[in-house]
Amino acid sequence: MLEKIAPSLIAGVPVVVKPGSVSCYLTEAVVREIVSSGILPEGSLQLICGGIGDLFEHLTDQDAVTFTGSASTGRKLRTHPVIVENAVPFNMEADSLNCTILGESVAPADPEFGLFIREIVREMTAKAGQKCTAIRRIMVPEKRLDDVIDALKEKLSEVRVGDPAAEGVTMGSLVGLSQREEVWRQIERLKQSSEVIFGGERAFKVIGADVDKGAFVPPTLLNCRDALRASEPHTVEAFGPVATVMAYRDRENAVALAAKGRGSLVGSVITHDEQEAAALVLGCAPWHGRLLVLDRDCAAESTGHGSPLPPLVHGGPGRAGGGEELGGARAVKHYMQRTAVQGSPTMLMAVARQYATGARTTSGDVHPFRKYFEELEIGESLLTASRTVTEDDIAAFGALTGDHFYAHFDEEAARNSLFGRRVAHGYFIISAAAGLFVDPAPGPVLANYGLDNLRFRQPVGIGDTIQARLTVKQTIRKEKRPGDEHATGIVVWEVRVWNQDDVDIAIYDILTLVERRGE
Amino acid sequence: MLEKIAPSLIAGVPVVVKPGSVSCYLTEAVVREIVSSGILPEGSLQLICGGIGDLFEHLTDQDAVTFTGSASTGRKLRTHPVIVENAVPFNMEADSLNCTILGESVAPADPEFGLFIREIVREMTAKAGQKCTAIRRIMVPEKRLDDVIDALKEKLSEVRVGDPAAEGVTMGSLVGLSQREEVWRQIERLKQSSEVIFGGERAFKVIGADVDKGAFVPPTLLNCRDALRASEPHTVEAFGPVATVMAYRDRENAVALAAKGRGSLVGSVITHDEQEAAALVLGCAPWHGRLLVLDRDCAAESTGHGSPLPPLVHGGPGRAGGGEELGGARAVKHYMQRTAVQGSPTMLMAVARQYATGARTTSGDVHPFRKYFEELEIGESLLTASRTVTEDDIAAFGALTGDHFYAHFDEEAARNSLFGRRVAHGYFIISAAAGLFVDPAPGPVLANYGLDNLRFRQPVGIGDTIQARLTVKQTIRKEKRPGDEHATGIVVWEVRVWNQDDVDIAIYDILTLVERRGE
Repeated sequence: MLEKIAPSLIAGVPVVVKPGSVSCYLTEAVVREIVSSGILPEGSLQLICGGIGDLFEHLTDQDAVTFTGSASTGRKLRTHPVIVENAVPFNMEADSLNCTILGESVAPADPEFGLFIREIVREMTAKAGQKCTAIRRIMVPEKRLDDVIDALKEKLSEVRVGDPAAEGVTMGSLVGLSQREEVWRQIERLKQSSEVIFGGERAFKVIGADVDKGAFVPPTLLNCRDALRASEPHTVEAFGPVATVMAYRDRENAVALAAKGRGSLVGSVITHDEQEAAALVLGCAPWHGRLLVLDRDCAAESTGHGSPLPPLVHGGPGRAGGGEELGGARAVKHYMQRTAVQGSPTMLMAVARQYATGARTTSGDVHPFRKYFEELEIGESLLTASRTVTEDDIAAFGALTGDHFYAHFDEEAARNSLFGRRVAHGYFIISAAAGLFVDPAPGPVLANYGLDNLRFRQPVGIGDTIQARLTVKQTIRKEKRPGDEHATGIVVWEVRVWNQDDVDIAIYDILTLVERRGE
Repeated sequence: MLEKIAPSLIAGVPVVVKPGSVSCYLTEAVVREIVSSGILPEGSLQLICGGIGDLFEHLTDQDAVTFTGSASTGRKLRTHPVIVENAVPFNMEADSLNCTILGESVAPADPEFGLFIREIVREMTAKAGQKCTAIRRIMVPEKRLDDVIDALKEKLSEVRVGDPAAEGVTMGSLVGLSQREEVWRQIERLKQSSEVIFGGERAFKVIGADVDKGAFVPPTLLNCRDALRASEPHTVEAFGPVATVMAYRDRENAVALAAKGRGSLVGSVITHDEQEAAALVLGCAPWHGRLLVLDRDCAAESTGHGSPLPPLVHGGPGRAGGGEELGGARAVKHYMQRTAVQGSPTMLMAVARQYATGARTTSGDVHPFRKYFEELEIGESLLTASRTVTEDDIAAFGALTGDHFYAHFDEEAARNSLFGRRVAHGYFIISAAAGLFVDPAPGPVLANYGLDNLRFRQPVGIGDTIQARLTVKQTIRKEKRPGDEHATGIVVWEVRVWNQDDVDIAIYDILTLVERRGE
């Protein structure tokens, strides 16, 4: 739920949440906590438990629907007449047959072998395997098949199923009895092309609970002998602690097996060999929303196969639904309308509240560095004095900085260079431009903390005269936080430097921190 | 067709084109020209005229479908079982009831009034109004209704319909007789809530052709008196030279009328008043893929209401199909799978062929500035000597550049500043870093032409010692063009500067042009 509502709320779009029937008690408790915390504006988060009535009939082109669940329900919603009629953006994230691949380069004694086994057992048993990102397909090189199966059996035999409140229990029950029966049905289907090599029996030891009354399923491992031809391991999802091991012959074979999942949320590649990782990742990428390369170097910090993170896409092509959640700022944009605006630069500045090259600028008697954040207008501009660059300037700059690049000093070599003559240092030009536009006395401009998008368009030779213009491009108010000495905002300035022939020398943005008045 | 195939081909994805039946002769001729020009790899552009047979049954999760046409056909394709089953990306661009709005601030004598009239007549008559972006709804302030109607009638009466080869003809026929009859049917529907005020008669003068045998429709203007309540002007599209004028009361009313189109490809706002433009654009933006603000300043360069341009989105929400074409690089990405990759920095570098902060670096005896483009490895790195910054450095840099900002020179004011002490110029730090890493003699590095993403993390005080590392982050081979003296590539270097306490001072990318060997 959180990965769906967070981007929506950041986009300023309120949310109606509808959880699955079996898990809605839990959702209700979480939503109650969120609402009562008061961190959200009233009404921005709403919850429907149970049927949604005719809610979908009221969807308009200004709504968006985002769905997590089974592929079949997702397809039904995607083709709902109102969604189709109004082209309602529909984002779907469906359970998929996620795979993990052990690299051919990994030997049983390598740390990666242990990581592989641990990751599989974790994905099979966390939430009793009821995760859209859980590992369902385990791909191992032929030569490692027995080693992997032995290691998995050993670890899985340590799993204690039962009441999570009881001591020693490491895996609880499924979400309900209906789900338990569904998993057993899928295991039966999987058995059409695979054999059960661990678990898979209804009678097993349960701690602190009744194996028949609770929705318990034991960790169950299958092995598929002919995985490239079999369809079940790649299409049948047992939404519980169930996974299938399959051997692969070579790298191409591993990629082909992964592709047979027809689109997954996530896959993982466990290897310490960079070339192997690169080949497997590029091979599998067309069928995956996310790929994790796990090795000894990242294991300590890795959140693992099953955890989507805010900057990473959560979604995937094909069976995974073709949707996209998270992925940084892009997730937020899924909830926003993108409109291209055309017009004169001045119009674009008025609409977007950002200076556009060529827009009307304004200037007054007061240097913009003497103005507080609120006093600065978009398009406010300072035209500097001009300065002629001398040979002494170049010599002094080289001596001071230690930058003796031949194009600045070697008459002969410079003539044969791209520039055709000795030229001033680019760093000198932007430093001299600052000398032209900076107002030295203490004032609201507290610091220049960055520079972006600098491009040198033309070089500056000895005797050339430069002049600059500084223009307020964008202003971003910052919230004052406890501990901040000043209330401030960010001011982005466009700097444009040109020469005596009105030819642009350099264009870039500088970022300054500017104080807000009287706060 | 071109706005669809260009982004696909740029993405490296071959295209199968299926034009509409009536216009397929023209498409065939164009495709033949493109293919015979030899600019495309063989097989990358294919054409189907007529039925597509069971083509859709073969769509997989690795395909994408993009559609332009009627909303009803689009909805049928979008819900095709195979498209839904395989989550095939489907991009739809449907005809919409595009509007143009005359600002309240525009007087009949203003240049914008003439631009408004000219734009409407052009959109109504170009391609005989058979454009997905054509203006269908004309919104004018109540007080200007009569002026606008008079001016439109006058201009429309100058339109000469007939055989385009005949002298004086300014508008040709529709694409076929079936289309002509369809337009007449839609005009009848429009007449349920609007009255025809120009054209609208089957008997009219046609030059060089037979009015009955050709698919001719005269420019036809309607007026809707109660546009906020009427539905036809906002839902019925007569795909020909037909538009409806409607009066609006105030700005909110104009926005509400525009929204009644339930999603359009494009709208235009004609005004010279920036505040009015900003309010109308922001009000209409949720229902538009593109908005044009037209005034005297941009008229000469504007491509007009009807022309999508490569960097601008072509698509729109709701009725317009909810899809997105063009829009710069984003159009290309619609054809590509986006996969998030996790792993150690070194693994990410191996997969993405781009240095990631923290990845393993390599270094050798040869300064990287002495290496040709092909010889530079991603992650190849140079650790510089260190340099202690003195008070003299700061004084000399201020004297040379003219930058006497108080934080560098005024002991007392600097103590009360953010920095708490006198600090070196940021520009000096990056200049001195260049002095540390530049290899001065002529070599393959031809020029430093840009700098990106510079952030100053910490200031440098008198007596602090800085050191830097220069690392090859990315290499981009450039095609040598006729006239280029050197075969080159772009090398992006990460520069990291830190102090004696290992605290980062500045991190940024520099862009250099590097010669390729022996070419």
